Amino acid sequence: MNLNKNTKILIVGLGLMGGSYAIALKKKGYSVGCITRSRESVDFALEKGIIDYGSTTPDPAVIGEADLLVFALYPHVFIDWIEKWQKYLKPGALLTDVTGVKTSVVYKIQALLREDVEFIAAHPMTGREVYGVKNSTDAIFREANYIVTPTAKNTPEAIETAKRLGEELGFARISQLTPEEHDEIIAFVSQLTHCIAVSLMTCNSLDRLEDYTGNSFRDLTRIAHINEDMWSELFLLNKKALLNEMELFQKQFEKLRRSLEEEDLETMKAIMRQSTERRDAFDRG
Amino acid sequence: MNLNKNTKILIVGLGLMGGSYAIALKKKGYSVGCITRSRESVDFALEKGIIDYGSTTPDPAVIGEADLLVFALYPHVFIDWIEKWQKYLKPGALLTDVTGVKTSVVYKIQALLREDVEFIAAHPMTGREVYGVKNSTDAIFREANYIVTPTAKNTPEAIETAKRLGEELGFARISQLTPEEHDEIIAFVSQLTHCIAVSLMTCNSLDRLEDYTGNSFRDLTRIAHINEDMWSELFLLNKKALLNEMELFQKQFEKLRRSLEEEDLETMKAIMRQSTERRDAFDRG
Repeated sequence: MNLNKNTKILIVGLGLMGGSYAIALKKKGYSVGCITRSRESVDFALEKGIIDYGSTTPDPAVIGEADLLVFALYPHVFIDWIEKWQKYLKPGALLTDVTGVKTSVVYKIQALLREDVEFIAAHPMTGREVYGVKNSTDAIFREANYIVTPTAKNTPEAIETAKRLGEELGFARISQLTPEEHDEIIAFVSQLTHCIAVSLMTCNSLDRLEDYTGNSFRDLTRIAHINEDMWSELFLLNKKALLNEMELFQKQFEKLRRSLEEEDLETMKAIMRQSTERRDAFDRG
Repeated sequence: MNLNKNTKILIVGLGLMGGSYAIALKKKGYSVGCITRSRESVDFALEKGIIDYGSTTPDPAVIGEADLLVFALYPHVFIDWIEKWQKYLKPGALLTDVTGVKTSVVYKIQALLREDVEFIAAHPMTGREVYGVKNSTDAIFREANYIVTPTAKNTPEAIETAKRLGEELGFARISQLTPEEHDEIIAFVSQLTHCIAVSLMTCNSLDRLEDYTGNSFRDLTRIAHINEDMWSELFLLNKKALLNEMELFQKQFEKLRRSLEEEDLETMKAIMRQSTERRDAFDRG
């Protein structure tokens, strides 16, 4: 399937991310529909012109017309949905997603999917600390990374289309990784950072913090406002990689703590120097 | 000493913070001079009109004219300076500082200071990841907190003047803590966050991170660009409080890690819910 202006796009799950996809794709002139549980979300999206049509149930007619389906669901809901409703998919339809973990989802979906449709996984690395279609905006794509994670089952055409979709959405950088590479990197740059923010926010209950904090505490805990159902599911689905990253972090943090305890200035400064060098390299990226 | 438009202010140490003080105070119409080691910094500041006069050595005449002195030096340099040059201070002069730790500095300075001058400690909770007078700007005060940390030795008048100075600089919130309260809070909201950022930045050496990161990693490592001489000194000077905060954080992080390892969803979600509640309270604060 090639992405063109006649492509009928169906968003399954119209929350913050699904809604933001809809906004960006409508602006580009695509026909965009949605299936989502909440009547209120469908009505809101229709009223705002974010979608052309919407349904609160998996309507076989709506499913059967879609050329490209974007799944923006919790992983277990996504897998259930495919099992129950894939029979209505149009032959040749392309499926993609926004799921934050890949290895535990992609192979499962591809294994149970009909032979005449294709699933190409992708991860838009963006979000907000607020939820729902009402908070959707395509501004969240502008500075963000979009990662396509094909497997041996994917066709070059589908990979190309997924990348085109990332471009159409307005992402700053589009890259390609295996599901396994993706999950290792995500465990580090996204899941570990959320573990840190949550631990920092809950490890000490000092009162009236807001009177005494600089920007650093604010920055480190921005993501401490967290959707516990979604993130606990994503953590469990990437358990092995995330545990590994958590342990690497614990070791390094303990090394720094010990250098303070022992007043080992040499080690402390060496860690800080390496930190500065790496952060500089990261900025130059 | 009361702050008024005839007050002669002397900044000792014209780096990022000293320079930013000078900019803000000159805008308010004060006479502002500086003593700082670097000729280049003095020349730059004179050329930009950030100061009225400057010296690269502790000129007795310059010291003796100042009504209010702001010390923006490394703690050990600050203490040395007082020992060597306090003899030139004008009787009745008020001294304040910008040092990031208090207990280990304030009592020492007050103990060795002449009886006819007064030191009132303050901590402007702001900064940038770049250094030097060339990066100075009073914009860093706008959203920031300013904490005055008096001891039993301080007069109500000096406390009042220190708070007025915070207002004149343009800080958003001005508060008062004991040196001990300050150091406990700073260990948590500032020093611990720097320990975390540095550990995160150095615990894993994945390549080409910049292609795959969302905002969370960027936010959590902004402060990983760190001046190792300054921060290692500040850490050592607040060792006990910081070790305590590091251990609280380690315990909570380990609790979260174990909940993942044991797939104990209830504990994991409870930590996340508490995190969200506290972050919300913090934002409302």
